[in-house]
Amino acid sequence: MKHNFNSGPSVLPKEVFEQASKAIIDFNNSGLSILEIGHRTTLFQEVLDEAEATARELMHLDDEHKILFLHGGATTQFFQVPMNLLNEDETAAYLDCGTWGIKSINEAKIFGNVNVVASSKDKNYTYIPKNFVIPETSKYFHFTTNNTIEGTQTHFIPDTKVPLVADMSSDILSREMDFNRFSLIYAGAQKNIGAAGVNMVIVKEDILGKVNRKLPSMMDYQKHIEAGSVLNTPPVFAIYVCMLTLRWLKKIGGIAAIEKINNQKADLLYSTLDSLPLFKPTVAKEDRSKMNVVWVMEDPELEKKFLAVCKENGMVGVKGHRSVGGFRVSLYNALPLSSVELLTDIMKNF
Amino acid sequence: MKHNFNSGPSVLPKEVFEQASKAIIDFNNSGLSILEIGHRTTLFQEVLDEAEATARELMHLDDEHKILFLHGGATTQFFQVPMNLLNEDETAAYLDCGTWGIKSINEAKIFGNVNVVASSKDKNYTYIPKNFVIPETSKYFHFTTNNTIEGTQTHFIPDTKVPLVADMSSDILSREMDFNRFSLIYAGAQKNIGAAGVNMVIVKEDILGKVNRKLPSMMDYQKHIEAGSVLNTPPVFAIYVCMLTLRWLKKIGGIAAIEKINNQKADLLYSTLDSLPLFKPTVAKEDRSKMNVVWVMEDPELEKKFLAVCKENGMVGVKGHRSVGGFRVSLYNALPLSSVELLTDIMKNF
Repeated sequence: MKHNFNSGPSVLPKEVFEQASKAIIDFNNSGLSILEIGHRTTLFQEVLDEAEATARELMHLDDEHKILFLHGGATTQFFQVPMNLLNEDETAAYLDCGTWGIKSINEAKIFGNVNVVASSKDKNYTYIPKNFVIPETSKYFHFTTNNTIEGTQTHFIPDTKVPLVADMSSDILSREMDFNRFSLIYAGAQKNIGAAGVNMVIVKEDILGKVNRKLPSMMDYQKHIEAGSVLNTPPVFAIYVCMLTLRWLKKIGGIAAIEKINNQKADLLYSTLDSLPLFKPTVAKEDRSKMNVVWVMEDPELEKKFLAVCKENGMVGVKGHRSVGGFRVSLYNALPLSSVELLTDIMKNF
Repeated sequence: MKHNFNSGPSVLPKEVFEQASKAIIDFNNSGLSILEIGHRTTLFQEVLDEAEATARELMHLDDEHKILFLHGGATTQFFQVPMNLLNEDETAAYLDCGTWGIKSINEAKIFGNVNVVASSKDKNYTYIPKNFVIPETSKYFHFTTNNTIEGTQTHFIPDTKVPLVADMSSDILSREMDFNRFSLIYAGAQKNIGAAGVNMVIVKEDILGKVNRKLPSMMDYQKHIEAGSVLNTPPVFAIYVCMLTLRWLKKIGGIAAIEKINNQKADLLYSTLDSLPLFKPTVAKEDRSKMNVVWVMEDPELEKKFLAVCKENGMVGVKGHRSVGGFRVSLYNALPLSSVELLTDIMKNF
């Protein structure tokens, strides 16, 4: 029995693995594998329609928000967003909260001006800046709702009239949020949505069509909307796994239900960490991520020993990111509470 | 029993489906699904290394040619190629042989000048132009080696000093060719390489680093080479299916072995079509594709009836593309000779 704390690609529900495995041999009793069906068939259109409708229902999205499933990962969106939204002489506002924010800022600079309105670099990205000012002239404001590597999470939506753009790769579908307040949301699927190789992009059409550069077809959100996510051959299987995962989330009660479980998991782990002096969480309490929990131990020898105990107990993905060190465990939707219970038991007995 | 003549996504070897299905439950006895393993683990690195080494061996590629597995499909490469290779004031030479060629030309025009050196538009793309002149000042010459929709195939490599760039999406790995003569080859995987959602890109490094525009990281071939195809989270499962398919091809004897079988399939089908006056192949004999065979029947009622007979016999993907009409069957590597034998038997008895 493995306990998969991977940061992404990461654990998915067991029934999703079982259904996906079956569909590779025979998809929906078609006599064909999901890997060999045409992307313009009714068979696949039903998958796409269900994925789109389920995501819309789970996130309570209004009709102005279009849902796309696009090739690539969030790193693709880092440039696709400014390419679609930002003219060379315009300025977008960005929040700098670590690795992914920095990458998104660097890609945006290729297309226009970037105004970094706040940064938590001064404390090694262990907190989320607050009370920053977003100039009203900004074309959009971009932030990362959850910082996978640093273990911080934004527990507020900035109050601004500027269109909100968010990278939600590592916490989408994990907590209730007023998703309709965003003009653009993107997320690599390989954490809470499904399998690697596809992005979910949610975009309000009114922000499109305002740049004067000519866009390559595959980069043009408007063309993907018109083509209903089948502008070219999409990543069929990855989208199928998203559909299965979304269907599972709906079945167990949606975002409200999973948020309760996610809170239980995070509360149990953080309260254990806080109660044991050996373990030192790195992030400011009010900005702690409920998806990625980061801590260090002061003695490198103890870290090695603890890692070994985790491994003995079938735990995967516990080691911290090389840029932070220590430990980082991810508590995505599909990770069972029992895995966190085992981890905290191990901590208490260590 | 289905006979899958789909144009892509298309049939893959049965053992690939079986292994992929198993890996979704338990990958290589790791206790983890292939969908939940990290992309920077030894487990996945081994997949990537084997895919790369097998493709290199099968295609007899020299060390100057780098092999990448990138997000997206050929339509992504239509713009990624000129974005990496063509400055605004430079000119690239393109061959226009139908749907995909036209799309690649339109995307290139966003980045620089395009010189269409020849076109078969005058005869509705039913042949491949020959004896065209590629100006030596061209930055590169781009052509589509096999035209999936029109059913034509280029049975020669143009003799030129200009760097050759080819879209081989629908006939890569199907026939021996001096692949080292090309500076850049790309192919969407969902025909002869594996599953949809990934491109194989083969690039000679000496053509890179010569444009003066700033490239988004995800679009920069050089950055992908430096990162060994894991610049971001790659489409893990799609690459795994490529590795399995490449492994299968190597096991059955490589490209030379499959080319013999592909020739048998194409010869049987074309000779049957030529012997039966009811069926009219649309393509000039010397330019016929061995991968996609296109024909019409003069009477629309007969077309309907023949389509119904194919369906009764479990045949999928036989109907022609909407832009050509009639029939189009694809004979990719994994399609068994027996499926073509059944099809030709049906034709003879029709």
